[in-house]
Amino acid sequence: MSTRQAVVLLSGGLDSMVCAALAREEGFSVLALTIDYNQRHRVELEAAKRIATDLADRHIILPLDLTAFGGSALTSDIDVPKDGVGADGDGGIPVTYVPARNTVFLSLALAWAEAAGAHDLFVGVNALDYSGYPDCRPAFIEAFEELANKATRDGVEGRGFTVHAPLQNMTKADIAREAARLGLDAGISHSCYDPAPDGAACGYCDACRLRAKGFEEAGLVDPTRYVAR
Amino acid sequence: MSTRQAVVLLSGGLDSMVCAALAREEGFSVLALTIDYNQRHRVELEAAKRIATDLADRHIILPLDLTAFGGSALTSDIDVPKDGVGADGDGGIPVTYVPARNTVFLSLALAWAEAAGAHDLFVGVNALDYSGYPDCRPAFIEAFEELANKATRDGVEGRGFTVHAPLQNMTKADIAREAARLGLDAGISHSCYDPAPDGAACGYCDACRLRAKGFEEAGLVDPTRYVAR
Repeated sequence: MSTRQAVVLLSGGLDSMVCAALAREEGFSVLALTIDYNQRHRVELEAAKRIATDLADRHIILPLDLTAFGGSALTSDIDVPKDGVGADGDGGIPVTYVPARNTVFLSLALAWAEAAGAHDLFVGVNALDYSGYPDCRPAFIEAFEELANKATRDGVEGRGFTVHAPLQNMTKADIAREAARLGLDAGISHSCYDPAPDGAACGYCDACRLRAKGFEEAGLVDPTRYVAR
Repeated sequence: MSTRQAVVLLSGGLDSMVCAALAREEGFSVLALTIDYNQRHRVELEAAKRIATDLADRHIILPLDLTAFGGSALTSDIDVPKDGVGADGDGGIPVTYVPARNTVFLSLALAWAEAAGAHDLFVGVNALDYSGYPDCRPAFIEAFEELANKATRDGVEGRGFTVHAPLQNMTKADIAREAARLGLDAGISHSCYDPAPDGAACGYCDACRLRAKGFEEAGLVDPTRYVAR
């Protein structure tokens, strides 16, 4: 096992799967962190387990009940929009935004990294073809890295942290192509916000639409299992 | 109830109690957030409940098992030092430091605040007479506020967050005096890192020493119940 470790946030979606594989390709051993935040799309956690089996040296699934706070279609009984990307509002940030989610998740990744002696965090956010969440933007990632180096013993003592967002400037098509290049079975990942009880993807939420568009534009077969109609 | 709400991190210690009372004094209704991180000093949670009954409009105790990561005397089986403040190492950051704890806690406070429509966070950190934790320093608080305004829908849409650290420049004696001025019963708060099973304070850990020094320097009776010797 490599002595260079990185904590990778692994949701179970295609983006975080590619992100974990890129961390491995860079020579890191992967400490995969999945947050069980009582998301509606629980099947995501099963996908995270499958991906971690292939790509991670350790995997922690940490329960953290964000439904205690409410405020998002992904953690409460607000309906997940199905009418097209950006169709649920004023062209701003969608109702599937979970308040401060990536801040919370990166903070937990930072906590594990410092405890484990790792100094690299990977997160699969991307700012192109994305859903408009503020905590996927480059300015957020930069601000978090700055914070990390003021917030921690290692940071203030000069053993700084780097936050890697290797998908930052990729389109969904680029990500689908990366998955193919890395030899990943994209079919074991899960992106849908509102899957059927058996895990099949709805095909209509933003996450499904963006994912399908990625495979299509990349000229690749979409391995996603959709709800039969 | 006031319409101005603030999320206050409430550990159950004297500092966070005074912090919550100061938020109320400023006219905020208090959303008190306590993180049950599987800390050794579980009696702290009982103290948080007592304080919230007096000072908070809502109280959430959120389970988050930071022992999954390890790395601190407060969450693992490393011994809590008892030989005097700063005596456990090289004069640097003590073993009771929990990796990235305040980053994680403030992130959760931010998540609740945004979900509740609040724009003010209160945290009882202080940088004088403190234990040397990096995430109690003013530079950390400023960096977190910057991050909060890039991380959230409200932040990027111009409804910014303010992180209040009203104890930042107070000594422990100042804090003991504030508790008296605010009419608080400091005896219901709990600071000790390594209490007896009945909740009595050990008297020797850093938290006990700093707290006792505060009451002594303020010329106030120390209401803490110590282990009988």
